[in-house]
Amino acid sequence: MYKSEQLALSLKHLIETGTWKPHEKLPSLRQQAEASGFSLITVMNAYQELEAQGLIYSKEKLGYFVAENPLQVALAKKVVLNEKIEINSLVFRYLKSIQSEKIVPLGSAFPNSQLLYSPKLMQTLAQQAKHRISYEQTPSLPPGNYELRKQIAQRYCMQGIPTDPSDIVITSGGLDALNLSLKAMTQAGDYILLQETIFYGAWQAAENLGLKVITIPEHPEHGLDLEAFKKAITTYPIKVCLLMLNSHNPIGFTVNEDIKFELAKLLHEHEIYLIEDDVYEELYYDQKKPLSMKYYDQQNLVLHCSSFSKTLGAGFRVGWVYAGKFSEHIQHVQLMSTISVNSFIQNALADYLTHRHYEKHLKSLRNTLKRLKNQYYQYLIKALPEDCQVSYYPSGYFLWITLPEHIDSSRIYEKLILNDIGVAPSILFYRKNKKQNHIRINCSFEMNDEMIKKLDILIAQISER
Amino acid sequence: MYKSEQLALSLKHLIETGTWKPHEKLPSLRQQAEASGFSLITVMNAYQELEAQGLIYSKEKLGYFVAENPLQVALAKKVVLNEKIEINSLVFRYLKSIQSEKIVPLGSAFPNSQLLYSPKLMQTLAQQAKHRISYEQTPSLPPGNYELRKQIAQRYCMQGIPTDPSDIVITSGGLDALNLSLKAMTQAGDYILLQETIFYGAWQAAENLGLKVITIPEHPEHGLDLEAFKKAITTYPIKVCLLMLNSHNPIGFTVNEDIKFELAKLLHEHEIYLIEDDVYEELYYDQKKPLSMKYYDQQNLVLHCSSFSKTLGAGFRVGWVYAGKFSEHIQHVQLMSTISVNSFIQNALADYLTHRHYEKHLKSLRNTLKRLKNQYYQYLIKALPEDCQVSYYPSGYFLWITLPEHIDSSRIYEKLILNDIGVAPSILFYRKNKKQNHIRINCSFEMNDEMIKKLDILIAQISER
Repeated sequence: MYKSEQLALSLKHLIETGTWKPHEKLPSLRQQAEASGFSLITVMNAYQELEAQGLIYSKEKLGYFVAENPLQVALAKKVVLNEKIEINSLVFRYLKSIQSEKIVPLGSAFPNSQLLYSPKLMQTLAQQAKHRISYEQTPSLPPGNYELRKQIAQRYCMQGIPTDPSDIVITSGGLDALNLSLKAMTQAGDYILLQETIFYGAWQAAENLGLKVITIPEHPEHGLDLEAFKKAITTYPIKVCLLMLNSHNPIGFTVNEDIKFELAKLLHEHEIYLIEDDVYEELYYDQKKPLSMKYYDQQNLVLHCSSFSKTLGAGFRVGWVYAGKFSEHIQHVQLMSTISVNSFIQNALADYLTHRHYEKHLKSLRNTLKRLKNQYYQYLIKALPEDCQVSYYPSGYFLWITLPEHIDSSRIYEKLILNDIGVAPSILFYRKNKKQNHIRINCSFEMNDEMIKKLDILIAQISER
Repeated sequence: MYKSEQLALSLKHLIETGTWKPHEKLPSLRQQAEASGFSLITVMNAYQELEAQGLIYSKEKLGYFVAENPLQVALAKKVVLNEKIEINSLVFRYLKSIQSEKIVPLGSAFPNSQLLYSPKLMQTLAQQAKHRISYEQTPSLPPGNYELRKQIAQRYCMQGIPTDPSDIVITSGGLDALNLSLKAMTQAGDYILLQETIFYGAWQAAENLGLKVITIPEHPEHGLDLEAFKKAITTYPIKVCLLMLNSHNPIGFTVNEDIKFELAKLLHEHEIYLIEDDVYEELYYDQKKPLSMKYYDQQNLVLHCSSFSKTLGAGFRVGWVYAGKFSEHIQHVQLMSTISVNSFIQNALADYLTHRHYEKHLKSLRNTLKRLKNQYYQYLIKALPEDCQVSYYPSGYFLWITLPEHIDSSRIYEKLILNDIGVAPSILFYRKNKKQNHIRINCSFEMNDEMIKKLDILIAQISER
């Protein structure tokens, strides 16, 4: 046993026996080192081990404190402080592997582009380019094109969320919106709460900023586990949550309104900010439009991030954040990175939205995605072995396949790539020490004969193992 | 006197008397604290003070070391370790103030858009949008559109720089190229060398990444001061330099080939990376095209950053970095931020460059800028008081006016803004404790009667003081 482990064990005893009470300050590293004869490094390692176990938490410049309910956390192990995440290389290799044209893009994160890039929008762009409209004296600086922000604000208002164009900041896509929000709201060392299963971009953003990541598991029925959430925010001094509540990527669930209401109350009570990743918000069907957490947000704690990438095309690189009172702060960060967003596309989008073409396009897109998702679901559910599950939710264009626990989906991915079929293995969505028995399938491509052949290979590989 | 200052003074004595020799390791913070009875914080403050004075330097995890030639540095004060830079708010307010349409944009960083947004390019974009060309299965992921990279690579080759499309990464403009390069090449706490007078974006990028910034002053004749550069790199463990050597913003100089050659030798000898900001590279006249440092770079130490913002329009948000062997590393960082660059514009630019329209456009742009810059220079040099200097260089579209030392150019800026005239005061380009007696003027706008009226107000304000 290392010295630091031994020290951690003995300190843990002090906490478990109640000698050290919740929120009591621990001795400083130096005090502890002097008292024990251990080196500063050993003490630091021991403290970090206790922190990783959820028994203590740290506050910048103030030191370490005993957690609220350390016992439950340590026992339940439902809330996890994660070690440094290193999935960049993995994601990079994965994205490169599915980029080739010969790869059937069942693993793609983007919807079938045949369904996007609305001809009306492209005509608008063509007209404006031809007449050299929309090049301005200076490029549109943050917060971005006023008309576009006005149109976006109007869409919020129509959902019962009072919004002013000045609340919106246009960004270079949805991930840029998340990144700018995170940068504006956090400092290295801050605690952030993420869902255990989440879009890899969120992990990378947190890693990049040196944040301490706390994760909570998904609720098998409701998506968001409120109990785990409460435990996490009472155990750790969480500053910001980054959550996906509508058409969750990769699983697919949408959190119901009761839970969103409770979540909003908790955020308010504990003064925790929420960065809401809602890029699939428009891709619902057989249900009314799911509400954004912004709807419940009286205290301006929610930064709502969305984009046109999943509805009109990721090639545009246009997203936004409902920044509210943090608008200026986010613009500062933006001026240090990309400065602004392509002004031609912003102008074309503004015009397209003004003429209400977007609503028609969305309606047709939803119908197509619904039809395709049903086809894929029916096909897979019939053909896959009985010990596999396919989750179906009436939104988005992903199916989440659960394989038997002993199967490593990364190996399925490796085999399929040799057959020119891309799928998204679960390793992309959570840390390594979890069971890796899931696959995400993109079902936005027509199920023609060619696709059915490929699906059959996929099914055969899964059945064979 | 604070305890830490007192301690710093006494340690300085050890260095100055040669008791502690160059590159000798200082006692650790803890050793020093125990030896002296001072607290760890006091010792840390004292060390940081010595570091700021150039007497010692730090290496991550290894501790502090005596600088190479601490005495000269401390006495000459030519090389400066800068305190935390806080100019975001300033730059933000400035950019907002000149954004209004009624403000005459003599303070703008962007060239007159009437000279950019080439009709041929806009036609190409219109054609492609109309026929819905260039929307791909997936948006163009890093490193960006192949054809565009091929065209850019070809331009390097024609300047005698062997280049492959795979060396190039397309970015969301020039600042994004700088930021991605900095992020890929540095970690918080690393030493970076900047020019004392520099584009504010570079300052902000360094601040954002927690780098230790060393600056060297400009050479009055050559632009780059090689002696100061040598002193800086032998005093501090500089990892990366970020320099602008062609048509320097804001001053305007272009460093000659002899000095570039020497600089390349120094980079090689000391294994220091150079991020070269070269966004004005195409805007030269009455001279041959200035060489990039990439020309001298046998060891792949130079990351060359450029863009189309100053030649075709900043509204496109397309730049690039010659990343060479660091391409993959930079793509990793890009996948965590903007993912990729607008695919339509990339495609249109590729087509535009392929058909060699760009060369014609550049030729005409250079002629216009030359004519305008001469007009402004002649007008200002005649009308300004004798104690003002106007620097003229045959490139770019900036004039750099030096006022008498006692004049604070920020006050001139404040007065002119009230007259709807924007200018760029020197506070935007270097830290506060320098004489602020410079103004940058954008002379890319036609000198019509209206402009002459505004210039006369500017001249009157400067004369009046």
